[in-house]
Amino acid sequence: MADTIKMQTGQVAIVRNEAFVGKAEALKPVLLEEALKAARIVEVVADAQAMHGWRAREAAPAEALQEREYKKGDAVVLDFGDHRVGYVSFDVRPVGSPPDAPLKLRLTFGEMPVEMAEPFSSYNGWISSSWLQEEILLVDVLPARISLPRRYSFRYLKLEVLDTSQKYRVAFSDVTVRTVTSADTSAVIELSHPDPVIREIDRVSVKTLQDCMQDVFEDGPKRDRRLWLGDLRLQALANYETFRSDDLVKRCLYLFAAVPDELGRVTANLFIEPSLIADDTYLYDYSLFFAATLHDYAEATGDEETMRELWPLARRQVELGLERLDETGVVRDEESWWAFIDWHESLNKQAPAQGVLIYTLKRAIAMAERLGCESATELTARLAEVEAATLARLWDSELGFFISGADRQVSWASQAWLALAEVLPPEDNQALMLRLLAESPDIGPTTPYMYHHVVEALLLTGCRDEAVAMLKQYWGGMLEDGADTFWELYDPQDKSFSPYGSHLINSYCHAWSCTPTYLIRKFGL
Amino acid sequence: MADTIKMQTGQVAIVRNEAFVGKAEALKPVLLEEALKAARIVEVVADAQAMHGWRAREAAPAEALQEREYKKGDAVVLDFGDHRVGYVSFDVRPVGSPPDAPLKLRLTFGEMPVEMAEPFSSYNGWISSSWLQEEILLVDVLPARISLPRRYSFRYLKLEVLDTSQKYRVAFSDVTVRTVTSADTSAVIELSHPDPVIREIDRVSVKTLQDCMQDVFEDGPKRDRRLWLGDLRLQALANYETFRSDDLVKRCLYLFAAVPDELGRVTANLFIEPSLIADDTYLYDYSLFFAATLHDYAEATGDEETMRELWPLARRQVELGLERLDETGVVRDEESWWAFIDWHESLNKQAPAQGVLIYTLKRAIAMAERLGCESATELTARLAEVEAATLARLWDSELGFFISGADRQVSWASQAWLALAEVLPPEDNQALMLRLLAESPDIGPTTPYMYHHVVEALLLTGCRDEAVAMLKQYWGGMLEDGADTFWELYDPQDKSFSPYGSHLINSYCHAWSCTPTYLIRKFGL
Repeated sequence: MADTIKMQTGQVAIVRNEAFVGKAEALKPVLLEEALKAARIVEVVADAQAMHGWRAREAAPAEALQEREYKKGDAVVLDFGDHRVGYVSFDVRPVGSPPDAPLKLRLTFGEMPVEMAEPFSSYNGWISSSWLQEEILLVDVLPARISLPRRYSFRYLKLEVLDTSQKYRVAFSDVTVRTVTSADTSAVIELSHPDPVIREIDRVSVKTLQDCMQDVFEDGPKRDRRLWLGDLRLQALANYETFRSDDLVKRCLYLFAAVPDELGRVTANLFIEPSLIADDTYLYDYSLFFAATLHDYAEATGDEETMRELWPLARRQVELGLERLDETGVVRDEESWWAFIDWHESLNKQAPAQGVLIYTLKRAIAMAERLGCESATELTARLAEVEAATLARLWDSELGFFISGADRQVSWASQAWLALAEVLPPEDNQALMLRLLAESPDIGPTTPYMYHHVVEALLLTGCRDEAVAMLKQYWGGMLEDGADTFWELYDPQDKSFSPYGSHLINSYCHAWSCTPTYLIRKFGL
Repeated sequence: MADTIKMQTGQVAIVRNEAFVGKAEALKPVLLEEALKAARIVEVVADAQAMHGWRAREAAPAEALQEREYKKGDAVVLDFGDHRVGYVSFDVRPVGSPPDAPLKLRLTFGEMPVEMAEPFSSYNGWISSSWLQEEILLVDVLPARISLPRRYSFRYLKLEVLDTSQKYRVAFSDVTVRTVTSADTSAVIELSHPDPVIREIDRVSVKTLQDCMQDVFEDGPKRDRRLWLGDLRLQALANYETFRSDDLVKRCLYLFAAVPDELGRVTANLFIEPSLIADDTYLYDYSLFFAATLHDYAEATGDEETMRELWPLARRQVELGLERLDETGVVRDEESWWAFIDWHESLNKQAPAQGVLIYTLKRAIAMAERLGCESATELTARLAEVEAATLARLWDSELGFFISGADRQVSWASQAWLALAEVLPPEDNQALMLRLLAESPDIGPTTPYMYHHVVEALLLTGCRDEAVAMLKQYWGGMLEDGADTFWELYDPQDKSFSPYGSHLINSYCHAWSCTPTYLIRKFGL
């Protein structure tokens, strides 16, 4: 292409398409803002029954704050009443003598009570501590209105006076968050459903999606605040049932399409600031999802022009996916982080990745046919080979499960993804999912992301009651455990589970957890 | 006065003179700026012979910085080659993969190597830790140019990477300080003197004054960054011999004059931002210095108009000073912090305060006579009474020293101030100062502020050689110990002395230490 330039980032050469960058830029949304006050003063107390062992209880109404005085070592926790994403500002004034030394404050933002209770200095996980939402401020001139330049994702804010001087104290007032989102809530049709639990799960799903919708679909507004393809696919599906910010999906597709590598691979995630950069992380499933997401977008919007323009890159992802097949027609397994699928330490990725490949191949063929491309015929032929290979190599008819990897692992992920891929005939596919529930193999789902695929596979195979039960049990469990927005990680058997080494760093408003609204509305649950 | 309003700050009612505020505002100087780069990379190493036990030695030229990469836990110390006051900015760029987590940095600014070597978390003094110059920054978008909004006073800057992520490191470049001062160095005549030590003491005095000259005369650009009357008086004297920013002295006089309390007392110090506020600290000697500083200003500038306008308030300070005399004509002593004089825990303030009163009274009389005021006669009569009372009550002819307080303390401060007050005949005054040097009573000077008054008393009494020797020994000692600017505190016998509980919090560029240039130039040393 004439309008592309090559850029070297890390070890990967990127072929940048400026026309696509321009299209994405033109679709950049305006952020909607709302100024909201702190709702109340709370105390965070130990409670063995509460999530992480901590519960916030009301200590005083928010109005009491301005009357209170804080000296060195004092702290107060404010509760904003619900999950917020935005920019915080507040007034601070001296009490006593004129302030004869700077004021030193620590601000701690938390989505969950645990972030107010357990010191961030105790964090010892393997991903960066810089995700912990904390600021240390030195204020030279008082009184002052402090406006923090960084965006935070939180419900709770701890204001902590690290030092004043012996001559003065401080008082806080008008603690405000200017929330930001590109999601227009007026576009969402309220769910009319007789089951209040389903209604609440839907409401919190929509709120989760809303808080992740910024100038791109972010995975989580606390962490990583970034556009990941695996999250985008699910956010887009939820969006078509709710906000209908379809241009934001289109923008994100063009952003991914603008920076493939020289092989044509689409990156797993993008950095938007200071300029568009493809991360040097490539995941087998995520690259394929570029095609699946494009398919879903065209289905939902009828935007054939975009489909046509991005089709060559979508087809390329499928070709690259097929290139990974070994001589027997099964994707080559590997020790490294080559596919995501789920956060499970022992999960073998081969069979679920095979499922993602077939799932995507079918959608690619649908696009090729719609566009009248010759490649439809070739892809259809390849599909048949791959499906045959899957049954020959990965289906264990004695076990009645798909197996994965050299150790023939039987996991939930393998069954769910190969059910979604519809390799088996419908009745066998349903039997597979019911067998999965009945036998419940050890290697289970660990994230809402994987639970989503299990529930969707149940719905696809006609196991509606089981799907509803699982949805209510899993996402409803989060609600019972205090979720204002749905969490990145939730293992009912191990509620402090974190793949990062600490629950402090988990994201408690995470895009891939927002899908119940899609499942409920799309499938009419 | 019609143009005054009363304000209540703390327990003190302030009578605000808006006309004076306006005059001071009109004299606000423009700050001169200069962009300066870091000079080199240094290591701070333990050295028992060095000040505080730490010495900075060159590790690499400054240009090497941009080639170096820093990961979590790494740090680098930059040396700006001399003392700087201003605003710091630098470039930071990621190295490796795109930065997938915020960058967390700690910046530590130090006037002395010890501030780079001893962690601020070890500080346990009684004044606020918020004076320690440290910032913790979280940077969301890289590369970035970081421009810190606060002003720092430093020679050394430690850049410390608290966290990045496992995927990237950072590199720093173009670390720059935009220095600020209202002092115009081109106005200073270079000292021509055969003694290189005297030349160097003069140069560093001028640099110290320069760095303290901002939109007011600050006591220290690190701490307290505030306009104190005791410092102003000495800065003004040094200024008349060097920068001749006489309007800045005038501005400061009007600022003090704008906010006396309802008794007419002038505060010991002022806050300028966010608006002019009189601190609720009142010190006997500092209030009197309003009159002395006005006298010196008028002497240096011939500005009789200002003298005339501020004279009523100057006279009022003398009246208030006289009101503190007991029935025998000696200032009433007290346990509390009623006069400053010097940072010496055991120093009794009575006799030195008596000296300050007489010293000021004589200058007030000179002003009254110049202005043709009737009060000259009355003040002259009071002076005779006070001098007689001083000799009767405070002079111990057996000891040959002035004594102070109920315990008849013999201190350097008492002798120096009563010598400066010229209570004794000239030959006795000289004998007093020589006796002071010979017998060296235990309660000695602890600050350059007090040393200044001892040296000036020696010069006044004709002990020129002794004055030069002390000046070279004391300020020259600071130079030998590594001073770039003269320090707030320096006790050659206890080099870690701090009245605040830690040498980390001392100010190492302090206005009251800048007087050698005045002593050298005014007295033609």
